[in-house]
Amino acid sequence: MQHYFLDQALKTGESVTLPSNIGHHLGKVLRAEVGDHFELVAPDHQVFEAQVSALDGNIVKAKILTPTNKDVELPVNVTIVSGLSKGNKPEWIVQKATELGVAHIIFMPMNWSVVKWNQKAAKKIARLNEVALSAAEQSHRNIVPTVEYLDGLKALTQLDFDTKLVAYEESAKQGEEANLVKAVKQTAKGGSIVAVFGPEGGVSESEIEDLKAHGFILAGLGPRIMRTETAPLYFLSAISVLTELSAFAE
Amino acid sequence: MQHYFLDQALKTGESVTLPSNIGHHLGKVLRAEVGDHFELVAPDHQVFEAQVSALDGNIVKAKILTPTNKDVELPVNVTIVSGLSKGNKPEWIVQKATELGVAHIIFMPMNWSVVKWNQKAAKKIARLNEVALSAAEQSHRNIVPTVEYLDGLKALTQLDFDTKLVAYEESAKQGEEANLVKAVKQTAKGGSIVAVFGPEGGVSESEIEDLKAHGFILAGLGPRIMRTETAPLYFLSAISVLTELSAFAE
Repeated sequence: MQHYFLDQALKTGESVTLPSNIGHHLGKVLRAEVGDHFELVAPDHQVFEAQVSALDGNIVKAKILTPTNKDVELPVNVTIVSGLSKGNKPEWIVQKATELGVAHIIFMPMNWSVVKWNQKAAKKIARLNEVALSAAEQSHRNIVPTVEYLDGLKALTQLDFDTKLVAYEESAKQGEEANLVKAVKQTAKGGSIVAVFGPEGGVSESEIEDLKAHGFILAGLGPRIMRTETAPLYFLSAISVLTELSAFAE
Repeated sequence: MQHYFLDQALKTGESVTLPSNIGHHLGKVLRAEVGDHFELVAPDHQVFEAQVSALDGNIVKAKILTPTNKDVELPVNVTIVSGLSKGNKPEWIVQKATELGVAHIIFMPMNWSVVKWNQKAAKKIARLNEVALSAAEQSHRNIVPTVEYLDGLKALTQLDFDTKLVAYEESAKQGEEANLVKAVKQTAKGGSIVAVFGPEGGVSESEIEDLKAHGFILAGLGPRIMRTETAPLYFLSAISVLTELSAFAE
């Protein structure tokens, strides 16, 4: 069932005229008909079932039915920090991380980043926020993850999070396998977790020292070496397993 | 450090002439020099440190040093069954699944597969095995995962596995969140797990009934809808978390 995010509050029984981009998608791309059901998400993250009531070109009217009471969000608020990587990896990361429940994604140049965004950052971030919206629609999220650019570690260390991790390959090689689980278990429901993932070359030693000095815990993500675009997906899956699947969830 | 798989047994102190493809990669692509260290994996999956002893065009000789004693493999043998999907998703799946520790990948047409491979299957599978080798080298695996094509569910259900799962979106929607954890916990170290993932359209009801009749357990992978190429990565990450990270590992 199609799933769209709206900027306007919704109430059962109301009739709404959909924004033209959504109307176009429903009416022209999907060729919806009067009576078809779909989902709308209000700004308060509540999901409502809705029904097409009228179609006129791009103007689509819908009747708001009952709330679905679906909440597919992770019980903790997760931010992924990704060192700038090559090609279309950032798009891939945003799309997959959104499917896996991320709340916020930060792209940041790091010591071993081969690419720089500089003046291109604003345009890339705008595109990545579109990718997040599209993926949030497909995964039927209650929220649309946000994507932002920070120009360096200094800006990151000024942000506040309940739990702060950095995925460090060297820790994994040394057999560190407890910190990820411990950190997630210690984060209260509704708490915030941030995890830093290096670019293709990894996280540099000076970045590790800087992050440690700001309260980041080094965590291994299992014994295998994962690419810069894979490690965040392992991490998000791990959070889901530890907080959502029975026998572990509170 | 570079990591290559060899077909010949290795012993500390020996001198080996490397196969020409590896010699070419070390000598010409990486411009290795005498004295450079790298890793070689023997057919028994043991990893040895090795040192370049002589370079002559594509002919590279190496001295076998000590075993590294590294074992990065999952403690269970995991097979992913992926319903044929579009474009280069199969390559992505093989690459990422290899980074995440998969042992075997089966590609199989399913009811809702939009694509068919038919006569192209052999060529595609050959290419996918190359992707697996390359990813296994990069992730420093002890084994190279194998990729095969089965022409349908009937062939799959004739194979033997200790634990058999099918990732079913409908189960997740109904709140099923225990079976994945239970199934993994019940699989002994060294045991085999297979998990079936549908193509873009999902797994059909008749396929679900067929799989259930053959002992497959329906498992939800958390409340969010994941793409056909993302769900197997969630699953492999889950297995790692449940079997390798402290507080859960045996």
